[in-house]
Amino acid sequence: MSALAGVGVSPGVGLGPAYVLAYRAPVPEPGSRHDGDAAAELAGAVRALERVATDLEERGARAGGEAAGILEAQAMMARDPGLAAGVAELIEAGTAAARAVHEAFGRYREVLAAAGGYLAARVADLDDVRDRAVAVIEGRPIPELPTGDGEPYVLVARDLAPADTALLSRDVVAAFVTEQGGPTSHTAILARAMGVPAVVACPGATSIPSGTPMLVDGTSGLVRTAPSGEDVLAARDADAARQVALSAVTGPGSTADGYAVPLLANVGGPHDVAAALEYGAEGIGLYRTEFLFLDRAEAPSAAEQEAAYLEVLDAFPGGRVIVRTLDAGADKPLAFLPPGEHEPNPALGERGVRLLRAHPEVLAAQLTALAAAAARSAGALRVMAPMVATAEEAAWFAAACDAAGLPAAGVMVEVPSAALRASDLAAHAGFLSVGTNDLTQYALAADRQLGALTGLQDAWQPAVLDLVALAAGGAAEHGRPCGVCGEAAADPALACVLVGLGATSLSMSAPALPAVRAALSRHTREQCVLAAGAARAATGPEDARAAARSHLPGLADLAL
Amino acid sequence: MSALAGVGVSPGVGLGPAYVLAYRAPVPEPGSRHDGDAAAELAGAVRALERVATDLEERGARAGGEAAGILEAQAMMARDPGLAAGVAELIEAGTAAARAVHEAFGRYREVLAAAGGYLAARVADLDDVRDRAVAVIEGRPIPELPTGDGEPYVLVARDLAPADTALLSRDVVAAFVTEQGGPTSHTAILARAMGVPAVVACPGATSIPSGTPMLVDGTSGLVRTAPSGEDVLAARDADAARQVALSAVTGPGSTADGYAVPLLANVGGPHDVAAALEYGAEGIGLYRTEFLFLDRAEAPSAAEQEAAYLEVLDAFPGGRVIVRTLDAGADKPLAFLPPGEHEPNPALGERGVRLLRAHPEVLAAQLTALAAAAARSAGALRVMAPMVATAEEAAWFAAACDAAGLPAAGVMVEVPSAALRASDLAAHAGFLSVGTNDLTQYALAADRQLGALTGLQDAWQPAVLDLVALAAGGAAEHGRPCGVCGEAAADPALACVLVGLGATSLSMSAPALPAVRAALSRHTREQCVLAAGAARAATGPEDARAAARSHLPGLADLAL
Repeated sequence: MSALAGVGVSPGVGLGPAYVLAYRAPVPEPGSRHDGDAAAELAGAVRALERVATDLEERGARAGGEAAGILEAQAMMARDPGLAAGVAELIEAGTAAARAVHEAFGRYREVLAAAGGYLAARVADLDDVRDRAVAVIEGRPIPELPTGDGEPYVLVARDLAPADTALLSRDVVAAFVTEQGGPTSHTAILARAMGVPAVVACPGATSIPSGTPMLVDGTSGLVRTAPSGEDVLAARDADAARQVALSAVTGPGSTADGYAVPLLANVGGPHDVAAALEYGAEGIGLYRTEFLFLDRAEAPSAAEQEAAYLEVLDAFPGGRVIVRTLDAGADKPLAFLPPGEHEPNPALGERGVRLLRAHPEVLAAQLTALAAAAARSAGALRVMAPMVATAEEAAWFAAACDAAGLPAAGVMVEVPSAALRASDLAAHAGFLSVGTNDLTQYALAADRQLGALTGLQDAWQPAVLDLVALAAGGAAEHGRPCGVCGEAAADPALACVLVGLGATSLSMSAPALPAVRAALSRHTREQCVLAAGAARAATGPEDARAAARSHLPGLADLAL
Repeated sequence: MSALAGVGVSPGVGLGPAYVLAYRAPVPEPGSRHDGDAAAELAGAVRALERVATDLEERGARAGGEAAGILEAQAMMARDPGLAAGVAELIEAGTAAARAVHEAFGRYREVLAAAGGYLAARVADLDDVRDRAVAVIEGRPIPELPTGDGEPYVLVARDLAPADTALLSRDVVAAFVTEQGGPTSHTAILARAMGVPAVVACPGATSIPSGTPMLVDGTSGLVRTAPSGEDVLAARDADAARQVALSAVTGPGSTADGYAVPLLANVGGPHDVAAALEYGAEGIGLYRTEFLFLDRAEAPSAAEQEAAYLEVLDAFPGGRVIVRTLDAGADKPLAFLPPGEHEPNPALGERGVRLLRAHPEVLAAQLTALAAAAARSAGALRVMAPMVATAEEAAWFAAACDAAGLPAAGVMVEVPSAALRASDLAAHAGFLSVGTNDLTQYALAADRQLGALTGLQDAWQPAVLDLVALAAGGAAEHGRPCGVCGEAAADPALACVLVGLGATSLSMSAPALPAVRAALSRHTREQCVLAAGAARAATGPEDARAAARSHLPGLADLAL
């Protein structure tokens, strides 16, 4: 047995043979030419592209959620008329179809890469479309991740695109292990949403030969190869004991001494509601609405929006549903809301509420649809704005919501200035909701997409805890609730600390709810406050975590 | 008379005819071919590129400072072997030299744009090289901004690249007015360094016909066209009175009641020392060392570094010189320190101390050269690290400096977490120095390069004032000084507020020193504290400024 150490980002223990993702598609020979019938050759290329597009759409429909949007965007690439024209031109000049597709995509690739930011990040998606189309033309099977009835495997890769994993599930994948990525990478978020253990930032993982038996601990971050029978039994027993302990705690979230902390789910669309209900969410703390807007030439209709809101609202007749209005920007551009200027740092750009102010008609249409949905449902709909930095922005958003008949609108606290001036914001907002992922990114000035900065991108950084305390304190000055809807809420120890810092509700990926519910049930509010104080007294994230845990003895009982 | 409103970013009043920068170089005809002598045509193209390179280098040498580095980089583009190969290939295929240069640069342009970030921002520099080379080949004069003996003009443009303005001076330009840019744009920083009034973010400015008489108030941001004789006289009188009032205050910085606030200069190399001395700087609060490292294949030698440090140290035998170690990253990449991975947001990337930790040999060499310079000079050399986010980073840097014989090293506070945890940092650092430009950028999550976010990129934002207070308070807990070296210190009202927040020294572009010195001399420390408190009690930057000024009556007397 040998071991690798990474960062555990989705809890639980996974056991299975390694499946190392290392496929590279063959490149069609340069200069390869067709036999002269350009029309037939072109027809073959067009058929191949359409088949790829249809296949991607079908996968998207089956996967649903965020993966659906990504796969639909890929399908649009396969149907891009400019690409088709490029392919036709090359085939007319004598190039064989496979090579023509390869070359035409190559040109498009440069354009995407030149656009920078989000579009450049889609180069990998484009390459995937190209390789699929070339494989269809050449009559080769398109390689797939195994999804059959075999033993669940441990998927090992340098990094994973959401499209790689869209159709996987807990039945197929025992665990994810990636060399890159951090706690807020797509791999981590997706793994938690699927309830699959995951370890990221694990150097050397792809050197493990495929088929090697692996034991992955998504809590500690330890990855063991060729574990002994004893190791496996011990890990399975511990995991089983943990599951039993967790499932023993049900009902609304509450500390051991009865202080209610509503436990809510983060959802990306109606597709995620089933999991939220399965894991006992008391409502929705963050309903992301981007799925309605992505990869479309025009904004969605009022009826389409209203239906999507109503479907989630009706699932929680007694509970709250907090909808975040459209959060777009240069990092996730919309066809009908292009960025106004080139942005060298999209994360610091004209996004969220800033973009809504530049396009008030988009916000007005969304608020009208939200108000119509609220009027038709027994659920309690609340609205909040993304990326608010100042009291003035909070006042502007609150006024827009009031005008639409949606009073007491809230604001996200994900910019340091919003936490520092939380009291000023709370004077205008009905509630605050802390987004810890972006708040950490900005507070530490460390891009959440960079593997090299994982150590800084950690919500246990005492500066982040300070900001959460400031946000909750500022909200309390005006008697407003302050929830946390970032990934930090999914960490059972950190969840207790957040309550100790003053968070009044916690929202997370649904599979994280049982562990957080159990952790809260084992500790009094006073213990949470002591843990929070100890964490803030530390000077680094590891010390903060250790100090907090020393006040939270129930975590060890739960193997959390 | 009519008026436009912008943001005043460099104080003073400028009067002169508008010179609107609107030149567009003609594009050589597509398909134009040479007469068959490819060798002669190529020789002509190579000569033209070399002439452009030499010309740019000469301009850089004359301009000095930061502009020199930029113009040297442009010269390197003109001499790029890959570009020359592309030009040769096209000429051999029959394309005329001018068109060949245009097309070859076009390909290189795509590569630069695709690289994103800092490199993409250099596309304008590349275009300038291309247009200059094409003009030389076609025998056309290269258009220049007038630098003659005529009446100083008001330079009006959409935005200005430093290369546009490198050889301008106060004798030539009466004021700058740009439609884009913010208080921390290159135009603003350069204007302050030159002591020329400037107004940025002034919509409609380029619609003013060239030659229109203009009166520009770099304090209020008001731009008047065709002012009356009365307007001009009033403005000139006020400006003259202001100059007299300012020059009446000399000596070390101090409040009216004798609280010493050392006033220091920010410099980009030995070239800037003369201005620092001219304006009475008591030392150097920020010595940027990037000029030694930019656009080089290898790190500078120990002797070269030592000489550059010694030259500045020896200029201030009695005073302090604070050197910031190399601040590089994907936004300002070095040939010998390439970024480790693609960075979608370079401002949030592996820069500053993060990059030094990845390349400790570069820091060690710089610290050795600094220690050697310190040993040879009577000046008091201090060292500080850029982009420190955590106590752990501060401890690492302090240990590296200790090992090099440079004790009591400081750290920059330009990341929100550093301000929030200033006490933790001060436990390891000899002093703190707040960089308000980046601190504002991160605290508000608003890119300082984006014109659309100028309102957020304002150090008067109460959240930024909160962070400065936290930084100064944290330093004071350990008895450490906490200076401010960002552009905020150059605003006389804000300088008083910074002192009220606890800043123990202020460092700025040298031409801003007299106004800040005068402003401090008119107010007691208590007035500064009251002004700071009033500003922090406000909820937005305009209110904060107005509230502070109500406690600083001496500013109006000085027309500040």
